[in-house]
Order: sequence, then C-alpha cells, then structure tokens
Amino acid sequence: MTHRIHNFGAGPAVLPLPVLEQAQRELLDFQGTGVSMLEHSHRGPAYAAVHAQTLADLRALLGPGNEDFEVLFMGGGARSQFALVPMNLLYPGASAGYVTTGRWAEMALAEGRKLGEKLCQVKELWSSASQGHDRVPKAGEFAVEPDLAYLHYTSNNTVAGTQYPAPPEAGEVPLVCDMSSDIFSRPINLKPYGLIYAGAQKNLGPAGVTLVVVRKDLLARSHAKLMELGDMFNYEKVAAKDSLLNTAPTFPIYMVGLVARWLLDQGGLGAMAARNAAKAAVLYGAIDGSEGFYRGHAQGDSRSRMNVTFRLPTEALEARFIEEAKNEGMIGLKGHRSVGGVRASIYNACPSEAIEALVAFMKDFARQNG
Amino acid sequence: MTHRIHNFGAGPAVLPLPVLEQAQRELLDFQGTGVSMLEHSHRGPAYAAVHAQTLADLRALLGPGNEDFEVLFMGGGARSQFALVPMNLLYPGASAGYVTTGRWAEMALAEGRKLGEKLCQVKELWSSASQGHDRVPKAGEFAVEPDLAYLHYTSNNTVAGTQYPAPPEAGEVPLVCDMSSDIFSRPINLKPYGLIYAGAQKNLGPAGVTLVVVRKDLLARSHAKLMELGDMFNYEKVAAKDSLLNTAPTFPIYMVGLVARWLLDQGGLGAMAARNAAKAAVLYGAIDGSEGFYRGHAQGDSRSRMNVTFRLPTEALEARFIEEAKNEGMIGLKGHRSVGGVRASIYNACPSEAIEALVAFMKDFARQNG
Repeated sequence: MTHRIHNFGAGPAVLPLPVLEQAQRELLDFQGTGVSMLEHSHRGPAYAAVHAQTLADLRALLGPGNEDFEVLFMGGGARSQFALVPMNLLYPGASAGYVTTGRWAEMALAEGRKLGEKLCQVKELWSSASQGHDRVPKAGEFAVEPDLAYLHYTSNNTVAGTQYPAPPEAGEVPLVCDMSSDIFSRPINLKPYGLIYAGAQKNLGPAGVTLVVVRKDLLARSHAKLMELGDMFNYEKVAAKDSLLNTAPTFPIYMVGLVARWLLDQGGLGAMAARNAAKAAVLYGAIDGSEGFYRGHAQGDSRSRMNVTFRLPTEALEARFIEEAKNEGMIGLKGHRSVGGVRASIYNACPSEAIEALVAFMKDFARQNG
Repeated sequence: MTHRIHNFGAGPAVLPLPVLEQAQRELLDFQGTGVSMLEHSHRGPAYAAVHAQTLADLRALLGPGNEDFEVLFMGGGARSQFALVPMNLLYPGASAGYVTTGRWAEMALAEGRKLGEKLCQVKELWSSASQGHDRVPKAGEFAVEPDLAYLHYTSNNTVAGTQYPAPPEAGEVPLVCDMSSDIFSRPINLKPYGLIYAGAQKNLGPAGVTLVVVRKDLLARSHAKLMELGDMFNYEKVAAKDSLLNTAPTFPIYMVGLVARWLLDQGGLGAMAARNAAKAAVLYGAIDGSEGFYRGHAQGDSRSRMNVTFRLPTEALEARFIEEAKNEGMIGLKGHRSVGGVRASIYNACPSEAIEALVAFMKDFARQNG
C-alpha cells in the first residue's frame, strides 16, 4: 500500500488519488501507444485527443455561455497574467479598475500600473489592506465607472483566507477575475465575465499551466494594444492556434484533463460546491467551537471555503501546532509568511477524511494546550 | 512487460527509460514523503531539494565558467524567449544581429524586429533561406559589427536538419543561442555566450519548462530596457528569486533534474557527444550507402546529429515509408509540414537500438522499393 499523508498545502496542492493512480499507470505507455504522455508529440493523434477532450470537459464545467469564450492554456503561471491582462485588454486612453483584497490582488494592480502608467489609467477602487485583508467588499461599497475597460478582482484570497460569496457588481463593465484558488469549486455564471484566469496548481492540476477563459468579443475589440506583443503573449494569436501555437505544456494539460474528468465524475460543480461547503463548515465549526482557542482571521461573510486561516493564542503555540500536526501526517499548515498563523487549504481534491483528521487533532491540541 | 515503441518525434521526444521508470515509481509518494512531486509545494523541503539538485546538476553539465551565469527556469517555451531576449537585452539605440538558418531562427528574428523596430535595430546578418536552409554559415561568411548587443543564432535546426559544428565567430559580441534541440548533446564552451535558452522537450525533459542561462554582467548592463516589463518576463527578477518568483513548473523541473542526473550517470557530455556522433554516423551511413535511394537534405558539413532529414525518390514512397515504419513500431518520422520528406530525431535519449531498427527497416524498404 502506498504511503500517503494529508496535504493542506496552498498550492501546488493535493490531487485526487484516482487521478494520480491513472497517471502512474499510464506513465510509461499511454493507452497502449507505447509512448509516455511525457513524450507524445503535441502534434500527434494521442495528445490531440487529450487536448480536445480536456477542452471539451473544461467547457462542460464552465457551463452555459462558454461558446462566447476562448479557452486557452498558457505557461508562466497566473502571475504572468497580471501583466498579460493589461497588455492584451488595455489600449491607449483606457482605464481599468482593481479591487485589492490580498497579496496577489495587490501584485496584479502593481503589474497593471507598471504597464499602464504612460498610456492609460489603472485605478484601485477598493482595498482591504488597512484592515489586514480580513474581508471582501460588500455590494455597493465602491462605485464602478461604466467606461472602465474591465474590473479586476481576486475571487479567493489564499493568504488571508477570504472569498467573494458572489462576484462584485460592475454593470456592463466586464469582470476580469484571478480565480486561481477557487476555480471549479462552485458553479460559475459566465455572464458578467470578460476574462477568468487560473494557475492550475490549486484546484485544477499540477503547476505548469494556466487556464485563460476570455470573451471573444473582448479580443476583437482590443487590437490597439499598448505595445507590440510577442506572439506567445497575445491572446488572439494563442486562441487562433487553439493553444498549440508552440509546444504546449502537454503533461500538465493532460493532468488538468484528468482532474476535469474527475470533477465531472463527482457530479460536476454543484456537487463540488456542496461538498466544499460541508468540508469548510466542519473546519470553521471546530474553530468557532474552541471557546476562543482558535480564532478565524476572516470576517464571517467573507470566509473562504478553500483556505481556512486561523490563529492560536501565541506564536509559540502556532509553531508547536504545525510541528505536531506534521508528526501526525498533516503537512502544509503553516500560514503564508506575510501573515503567520495556521492555514488549511482544502481545495476540491482535499478529501473529507483529511478534514476529519485535522479537526480531531485540533480538538486534542486545544485540550492539551488550552 | 510494458509496451514501448521507437519514437523519433522531434519534440516532445523520447525520454530515457530509467527516468520514466523512476518518475512512475515515485508518482504517488515522492521518496517516502507520502506526497507526489505533482503535489509538493514549491516552497517545501522536498521540492526545494529537487530544485537545488537540478540546478547543481545543470551547472555541472554546463561546466567551467557557469558561475558567471544565472541558470533560470521559465515557462512559455523557447518561443516566448524569441520575445523575451530582445525585451531583456536590448535598450534604446542598440542593435542586434540574427543568423537565420531555419524556421525557428526566422521566427526569432521576426519577434525581435516586432519589439525592436521603433527603438533599436534588429538585423539579419546571414540567411540560408534561398538555398532551402540546407546549411549553416561557414566561418567568416558574414561580418559581425563589434557594437552589436548580441548575435542570435540557432545551434541546431530541427526542420532542415542542420547543426553548427562550432559556434559562429563573433569576437567580443555575446552570442545568444536557441539551443532547444541540441543542448547537452555535446560539451558547451560557455565563453562566447551571453545567453543560451532551450525548451526542455527535446534533450532535457518534458514540455513545460524552458532553461535560460544568462551571463550575470549582461543582466546588470540591461537596466534601460525597451519597455517596462512584467516581473515574470524580467530575467533579473526571476534570477533574484532563483526561479521561484512564482510557482515554478515543479514537475517538469523535477523531470529535467532526472534527465540531468541521467546525463551525468552516462559519463557527461563528452560521452553523450561520442554516442550521438556514433548514432548519427550509422544513420547517415545508411543514407549515403543507399545508392541514391535516400538523399540527405543537409550539406555534409552542416549535417545535424539530432535531426536527420532525408528524401525518397517520390512523395508517394515517403508516405509509404512513414506508414510502414509505423506498422513496425517506429513513429514520429514524418518531416516537418514545411519541408516534407522524412526526419528521424535522435536526441540524447534515443537509444542505439532505435537507430539499428530504423536502419534495418531502411535497407529492407529500399530493397523492396528501389
């Protein structure tokens, strides 16, 4: 029996066991071809079928309206998209709005400003920085001018552990969302979106590929870019070749395909949302029922179902908690270095047994140290 | 016994069997950690050790002088580097020279021109286009002005099947080389180089990561860039964080590490060069000994030891050759769509048994169809 432990890491993160088992079985010989998926040509029939099926399954998960969007695979991580979004969607004279609810949202804003400062305006519309990023904005808390090229937000904030219960209201302004840490953890209504991007390594697969879902009419509108773009950085060029402009990251995409298929097999995003809500409720229940030993970082209505962040009475106890949990076969619980504390990342693939093990440990630890 | 066939694809390409076997063994549980390398955090100790060892082994392969260079892992494939090289190394008023010996070299030039056209000069110094890219330039065949920021060339041309026997002479001008298709197939003398880049999927690992080796003083020199760069596109920023500015493509890098270790275990680059020369000699011998049935595309002194390109008397015979070879368990032999014919890619990991099988088939086929 293979040795496996509970991995609460924020990303790269745990993958579904059946997905790993299939990848292992097929590693030397993909489906009788005599060649590994690590070796198959990106132009050959074996990979072509994987590529097409992965896109089809991702479209099934995206649901109604997906035909108005291009679905792209790109390299360089979501962080590359911080620059590529303004490089592709802004044009001289345009303005974009950003809502900064955490570390990554702030970086996206900084990259946008860097690129936009000479030719266009990149504005911060709302920020939770002054309150330690403990919540996302409420409806109506900031105004969105109707002439913005887009409104950028981060649907789930891994560091602080907050999540938008619903997308922000932006009227006709297209939403651009960094959905890296909660994509496909619940159904998506595509209607308000202009662009969604997500690094694969949290809810979607291993590190090494980024999903970009972009409305076709936005690409058509954005011919007058801020600068001449390299082909690989140009969404239109990547879309025109169905993400095979060059050698795509074939194995990471294959893994994304296995995860997408697993999500569909689990019953799709409605079922995942219910399961994720239940998992998070158990964990927040343990925090709230600890008589103050554990204190959740995020405000109640902004609590993330993906990254549960909490503090203990002292930093020394936090360090001991993380160390003892590790000895019990639970890793990845250390909070991000910028905030400290404990963080349990409980993405789609995190099994409920992991939550149960963690909660049992939390109760024990509080009893012994409370 | 696992079913494996002979894969002559140009990339993604065959990987060493022991490397695949190790990856398969470790896929669910990396070295007793209870977590897959597809899941390990890029900030955790298991991946950190892989990252450091991979860099150390790559530096061992690069050999003397490597301490003057940064060794970076980037996403987006070598094709992204076509744009990133001028974005990082050019500055207003600078000129760069390009030698275009094939399809990819031409694309690199086009990307350089696109980015450089307003602020600097990107010049084509020599091209083999008019002669069907059947050779690389001879020493002294073009002049290199001493004030160029760099001279860009492609050491091995996968489509045409040509390869530089030695780097072009450029005096003090730093060479920038796309070494995607022959990196680590022979020893490298780093001295003339400013920058070497290589997509991993031919000689180095699976698709999804690109190696960039860049001289430290060139980075320091290039502060006045053509444009404000996103962090992920800025070599200096990537170098400052040891390629962990964001979530690196961890699994592809792990695979590169296994391949680097395998290369060292084979005896290093001197041993690989001897083996590659022998493999190529057998295949070119079969072409030259076929009494004209097979005709090599590349001129003699430009023949590639990585991609052996040849024609048959008719296109119909070429199609039959590729089809019958496939039936014999040999795939990936179709020439690039831009040139046709047959191409056998015989990178480092291509075993000599594959060459022997192909040569035996070639002799049979010529006898039956000659």
